[in-house]
Amino acid sequence: MNRHMIRYVLGNVLKIEAVFLLLSSLVALIYWEHEGIYYLAVAALCGWFGLWMTYRKPESYTFYLKEGCLTTALAWILLSAFGALPFFATGEIPSYVDALFETISGFTTTGASILPDVEALSHVSLFWRSFTHWIGGMGVLVFLLAVVPMGGGGSMNLMRAESPGPSVGKLVPKIKTTAGILYKIYLAMTITECVLLLISGMHPFHAITLSFGTAGTGGFGVLGDSIASYTYLQKWIITVFMVLFGVNFNFYYLLLLRQFKKGFLMEEIRWYFIIILVAVVSIWINIKDMYQSSFESLTDAAFQVGSIITTTGYATTDFDLWPAFSKNILVILMFIGACAGSTGGGMKVSRGIIGFRTLKKELQSYIHPKSVKKIKYEDKPIEHDVLRSLNVFIITYLFLFWVSVLLVTLDENDMLTNFTAVAATLNNIGPGLSMVGPTGNFAFFSIPAKLVLMIDMLAGRLELFPILILFHPDLWKEFFAKRSGKESDF
Amino acid sequence: MNRHMIRYVLGNVLKIEAVFLLLSSLVALIYWEHEGIYYLAVAALCGWFGLWMTYRKPESYTFYLKEGCLTTALAWILLSAFGALPFFATGEIPSYVDALFETISGFTTTGASILPDVEALSHVSLFWRSFTHWIGGMGVLVFLLAVVPMGGGGSMNLMRAESPGPSVGKLVPKIKTTAGILYKIYLAMTITECVLLLISGMHPFHAITLSFGTAGTGGFGVLGDSIASYTYLQKWIITVFMVLFGVNFNFYYLLLLRQFKKGFLMEEIRWYFIIILVAVVSIWINIKDMYQSSFESLTDAAFQVGSIITTTGYATTDFDLWPAFSKNILVILMFIGACAGSTGGGMKVSRGIIGFRTLKKELQSYIHPKSVKKIKYEDKPIEHDVLRSLNVFIITYLFLFWVSVLLVTLDENDMLTNFTAVAATLNNIGPGLSMVGPTGNFAFFSIPAKLVLMIDMLAGRLELFPILILFHPDLWKEFFAKRSGKESDF
Repeated sequence: MNRHMIRYVLGNVLKIEAVFLLLSSLVALIYWEHEGIYYLAVAALCGWFGLWMTYRKPESYTFYLKEGCLTTALAWILLSAFGALPFFATGEIPSYVDALFETISGFTTTGASILPDVEALSHVSLFWRSFTHWIGGMGVLVFLLAVVPMGGGGSMNLMRAESPGPSVGKLVPKIKTTAGILYKIYLAMTITECVLLLISGMHPFHAITLSFGTAGTGGFGVLGDSIASYTYLQKWIITVFMVLFGVNFNFYYLLLLRQFKKGFLMEEIRWYFIIILVAVVSIWINIKDMYQSSFESLTDAAFQVGSIITTTGYATTDFDLWPAFSKNILVILMFIGACAGSTGGGMKVSRGIIGFRTLKKELQSYIHPKSVKKIKYEDKPIEHDVLRSLNVFIITYLFLFWVSVLLVTLDENDMLTNFTAVAATLNNIGPGLSMVGPTGNFAFFSIPAKLVLMIDMLAGRLELFPILILFHPDLWKEFFAKRSGKESDF
Repeated sequence: MNRHMIRYVLGNVLKIEAVFLLLSSLVALIYWEHEGIYYLAVAALCGWFGLWMTYRKPESYTFYLKEGCLTTALAWILLSAFGALPFFATGEIPSYVDALFETISGFTTTGASILPDVEALSHVSLFWRSFTHWIGGMGVLVFLLAVVPMGGGGSMNLMRAESPGPSVGKLVPKIKTTAGILYKIYLAMTITECVLLLISGMHPFHAITLSFGTAGTGGFGVLGDSIASYTYLQKWIITVFMVLFGVNFNFYYLLLLRQFKKGFLMEEIRWYFIIILVAVVSIWINIKDMYQSSFESLTDAAFQVGSIITTTGYATTDFDLWPAFSKNILVILMFIGACAGSTGGGMKVSRGIIGFRTLKKELQSYIHPKSVKKIKYEDKPIEHDVLRSLNVFIITYLFLFWVSVLLVTLDENDMLTNFTAVAATLNNIGPGLSMVGPTGNFAFFSIPAKLVLMIDMLAGRLELFPILILFHPDLWKEFFAKRSGKESDF
C-alpha cells in the first residue's frame, strides 16, 4: 500500500479543514463571540498537522481502488474527529462522543442532531455546523482534487470512492477539471439560493446557513422548529432548491454545454420528478383534512417530500403526526433517495429504475422465455458489471441495515424509533419517526448505539464499501505488512 | 398456451380437494356435528367440477414454465376458493372474504387468522383448518404429481413453481418418484410427531391438528392461547418438530440413503442450526429477568425462535411484550426463514448464505482486485444464473413488500402493525407485532387490505413469480389469443 500517498492526501484534507475553520471563525469576529478563539485554535492545530503530513511529497502518486477507499474513509473520520473539537472545546456539547456524532452528521449531510436546543448555540458554532453540510455535500476529496495538483491515475479512485451513485461519470477526461466544474456549479447554485432568500427578506445569517444545509442536502437549521417559522415564500424557495440539489449534477453540466435535449432525456431526472410529483399529490390528498387551507397543506406536503427524498431532513411540520399512509410514503422516499451524482443520499433513483427493470425483465422471461432483450438504462444496454454491483449494493445495504437495527435495539427503545433511526442515518436524512421524529433528537441513545449510527452515517455517505472494508482484517494486514526498509514511517 | 393441460391439472386438483374434504367430514361423524353436511356438499361440488374438467384428457402434455407458473397460481387460488366454502356455508365465518383469507392463510401455511375466538369453531372446521396447513405444506401439486400419472416433460415445471427455495433438486431422475419420496417422508414425520404428542398425554384431536400445523409450518392452533396451555414436554416436542420440518427435505432423503456424511455436510443445515442456536441464546439472556425460572424462559425462547424461523407462527407467550432486542431478532428471523426445500417460508437460509458470500467477495475484491475466486455454496462454485435469480428475487421481494405496506397503510393503523402484517403474510408466518401480535388477529383490516395480504400470502408461498405474472398483461394476451379452430373452449 502506498502509505506515503495516503498520508499526503490526509494532510491536505487537514489543511483544507484549517481554512474552513478559519473562515468560520470570522463569524465569531462579526458577532464578537469568544467561542471564536477555539475555532482559531483548532484551525491552527489542523493546519500544523496538515503541514507536517504534507511536508514530504510521496515518491509515487500511484493509487489503487483499495487505497482510494481507505483514504476516503480515513479522511472523513479525521475530518470529523478534528471538526468535533470546537463544539467540545467551547463546552457547547459537553460530551466528545456527542460532538463527534453532530460533526459526522454534519459532514455526511445527515442532519441528525443530539442537541435538544439548537438556539442555545453561538453563531460561530451554528455556522460551522451548517458549513460542514456544505463541505460534505459535494465531498471534501472532490474539493481537494479541484485545488491540489495530484498526478498519477489515482485521483479517479478517490473521486469514485467519495461520489454517490452507482457509476461516476467523468464530465471531462481530466479529473481536476471535472472536480472544478462540479464545485463551480455547486457554489453558483448555493449563492443563487442565498440571494433569493435574502431578497425574500430573510436575515443574512439564516440565509447563508440554510443555503449550506440545502446545498449539501444536510438538514441542520438554526431555529428550534427547523423551517416551520419562515414565510411561505421562503419555504418554497427552500423546497425548490432542495429538489434541485437532489438532481444529478451531470444534468447541470449538460445544460451548461447547451445540450438541453440530452439533459432532459436523462431517465433518472424524469423519474425523480415523477416520483416527487406522485408523492406530493398523494400526501396532499391524504393530509388535506388536517389543514385549514389547501395551500398550507400543499406547502407542507411539497416541502416534506422534497426534504425527505433528497435526504435533507428539514421540517416545516411534525410529520410524525401525519396519517400512517403519508408517513409510509416518506419512509419509502427515505430509501429511494435522490439522484446519483447529486449531494443527496439514499439508495438513489437510478438504482430503483434498474432494479425495477430487472424485475420486469424477469417476469417477461417467464412469459417469453426465448426473448433476449437486454435491460436498458439511459438508452444504453446495462453492463453486466453494473447489475452485479447494484445487487451487491442492495444485499450489503440490507445486511448493514438489519445488523444496525439489531445493535441499536439493545438500547430498549421502541421498534419504530430503532428502525427509523437507522433508516435516517444510513440514508443520511436526519429525522426519523417516533422518538427521533422531527421534534425529537438523538441524544438519548447510549454511546454504543451512537457509534453504530455514526458508522451508518459514514457508510451511507460513502456508499458502504469504503467504510465496510475498514472492518476487513486483510486490509490492515496489507496496510502494516510489506514494510520495506526504503519506506519511512507513515 | 396449452389450455387443455391447464384445465386437466386444475380438475385433478379439485378431485384431490374433494377427497381431502371427504376425509374432514369424517371428523363431523365422530363428533356428530351437523356442520359435516356442508363439508360433504362442498366435497361433492369439488368432485363434480373435478370430474367434469378431467373428463377429456389433453391432447398434449407439453408444458412450459409459463404454463407451470400459471397453473400453480390458479390451482392455489381455486383450491382456496373452494376450500373457503365450508367455513362460509356453516356460518362460522359469516363473510366470504374472511373465509377466503382464513383458507389462503391455511393453504399457504401462514397461520394468520381473522377469527377472534378459535374455540367457537366446530371440530370439523378446526380439523379442516389445520388440514389445509398439511396439504399446503408440501404442496398440492407435488401431491398430484405423486399420485396422477402425467407424461411429458411438463411436470418439472409444476414442481419448480410450487417448491420453495432457489433451486429444486430432483432427488431422483423421475419426478413422480421424487414427489412420492417427499410425501412419504412428510407423512412419516407427521405421524411420528402425532404419536409422541399422544404419548405425552395430549388429546388425540389436539395431537392430530397440531401435528398438521407443525408439519406444514402453518400455525393454526385449536385453543385461544395457541400453545401456551400445553405442558413443557408437549411444547418441546412441538419445538423440535417445527425445527425439523424447517430442514431441507433433501437432508432426510440423504439420511434414508445412509449418506450421513453428505447430509451433515450440507451448509444450509449447518447455518440453519447455528442461527437458531444464536437466536435462542440471545433471546434467552434478554428475557431471563421477565421469568421466574430460567427453564421457563428457555422453553419460550426456543419455542418462539423455532416457530418464527420456520415461519410456523405458534406462540407459547405474547412475545409482543418482550424487549425490543428480542422482538427485533424475531423480525429478522421472519425474513431469514427456513431452509429451501422445506415446508417453511421466508427468504430461506440458503439465500442468506449466498447473499453474505457475495458481500464478502465484494469486500475482498476491493482489497485483492486480482483475485478471481468464485463464490462457493455446498462446495460447488455458484453458477451465474443462481446469483442472478437470487438478486432478482430480493429486488422483487423488496418491491412487493413496500408496495404492500403502502397499500395496507391506507387503513390507517400504526406503522408497526402494517409493517409486521405484511412481513408475517409475505413470509407465511402468521402473527406479527402490535395489533397483529400473537394475541391479536387480522379481522380489523378492510377488504382491500385483506386482498393485498392474501396476494402476499400466495406470493410468499409460491416464491413470488407465479403470482406476479398474473398481473402481467402479456400472459393473458397469450392465454386468450391464438385460439385455433382445433382447440375446444377452455
